[in-house]
Amino acid sequence: MSIRKMIALHPASKAHTNQALGDAVHHLMYCAKMCASCADACLAEDMDMTQCVRLCLDCSDICDATARLGLRRTGDDNQVLRELLELCARMCEQCAAECESHDHEHCKLCAQICRECAADCRNAAQSLG
Amino acid sequence: MSIRKMIALHPASKAHTNQALGDAVHHLMYCAKMCASCADACLAEDMDMTQCVRLCLDCSDICDATARLGLRRTGDDNQVLRELLELCARMCEQCAAECESHDHEHCKLCAQICRECAADCRNAAQSLG
Amino acid sequence: MSIRKMIALHPASKAHTNQALGDAVHHLMYCAKMCASCADACLAEDMDMTQCVRLCLDCSDICDATARLGLRRTGDDNQVLRELLELCARMCEQCAAECESHDHEHCKLCAQICRECAADCRNAAQSLG
Amino acid sequence: MSIRKMIALHPASKAHTNQALGDAVHHLMYCAKMCASCADACLAEDMDMTQCVRLCLDCSDICDATARLGLRRTGDDNQVLRELLELCARMCEQCAAECESHDHEHCKLCAQICRECAADCRNAAQSLG
Repeated sequence: MSIRKMIALHPASKAHTNQALGDAVHHLMYCAKMCASCADACLAEDMDMTQCVRLCLDCSDICDATARLGLRRTGDDNQVLRELLELCARMCEQCAAECESHDHEHCKLCAQICRECAADCRNAAQSLG
Repeated sequence: MSIRKMIALHPASKAHTNQALGDAVHHLMYCAKMCASCADACLAEDMDMTQCVRLCLDCSDICDATARLGLRRTGDDNQVLRELLELCARMCEQCAAECESHDHEHCKLCAQICRECAADCRNAAQSLG
Repeated sequence: MSIRKMIALHPASKAHTNQALGDAVHHLMYCAKMCASCADACLAEDMDMTQCVRLCLDCSDICDATARLGLRRTGDDNQVLRELLELCARMCEQCAAECESHDHEHCKLCAQICRECAADCRNAAQSLG
Repeated sequence: MSIRKMIALHPASKAHTNQALGDAVHHLMYCAKMCASCADACLAEDMDMTQCVRLCLDCSDICDATARLGLRRTGDDNQVLRELLELCARMCEQCAAECESHDHEHCKLCAQICRECAADCRNAAQSLG
């Protein structure tokens, strides 16, 4: 299974596949779910994880929206997509920083995917010129 | 039914209700659905509505994400929320401009709500300082 | 603003507007946001609201998906839509029952919209035959 | 990256990890994006793909909601989750059947993931008893 391959099969993609954007969509899809799962796990911890829950839920929503826009090839919306990718990268980095401040295994794993996702979002934003 | 009233019932809201943000969430909720419905209607038109479909779907997704973040009172994520509200306003204005270039009744209605939503997003962004 | 009016402007709706389905989409849109907001408020209460958070979040997600399907007029997916409306009604009733067991104002308001949404979903399901 | 591993890190999962449900969430996450991408590609085909667009969009939305519920460990909502998994399996099979009737490469790939996702949803539903 590969979301990158699927996007490349779009009739409008045949001439030119944006590999950086495909990679970003792939990571965004994972990051949206990882952050949602981390927020859910944070609710079960004994300590107060309020701020981590908030950032994970917000990060999940922004990643989800960015993935939705990123996989569309109908028409053109590159300017907004580039700005959203950049905002999403900042959100992922903020979420990663919060998660890195906790010792829970789910937070460590979430921080890791958030860092990777942020890097991919920046690459994809650059690829859109 | 009022989403503004609901948000005001959050324990953290009791001291201070952000009216501008509540108004934005209300319009974002509508705009997300109106844009999704306009994209769906555009698919049934005889002429090529490709670009309008794209902008309406993207606008719907960004409005939806912005509404999700906007109604949370758990923790604090005001910096990203403010940037997202500003990006959403630009997206709504771009979608409105596209819809205004068509004569379909659904496009006219969609453009109207997009303009209102953009104005509310800017107000809400300002209210977050 | 009216999501019912918007749906009626779809080229495929002109011959026949499904009023029951339009009402359901309207309430589903509200219920999705009300439940998300109630879950968020529950996190700030002193007592353990874990089960209420879960049902509100799940109800919000199912309402959101049902609204998305309910407003589409492209093609036909009535059989799945009818089953989803019926499942959504059961979810709303379960969420309402949980919220009614708490004294928080946000839970009372959430229970009320869930009951209305459940009734509308059942009407809409019946209208699809 | 593994969504299954993430779910297993939830404090409530430590005693018992539901492997079937983790597999379903993994495939649902992919299927939601694959169907969205297939619908987008269908819009660019020369022939009328209206019904395929509808089923792919609906399938994407139901998979997305099912994945959201499936990864939560907060509280308990197994009865609704089981019914939603079963409905999602029927939706995936219907979408696969439609996609299998077309020769486009994106439809073939979409049908394949839909079939796998349907099987996983049924397994997960059974695992919930």
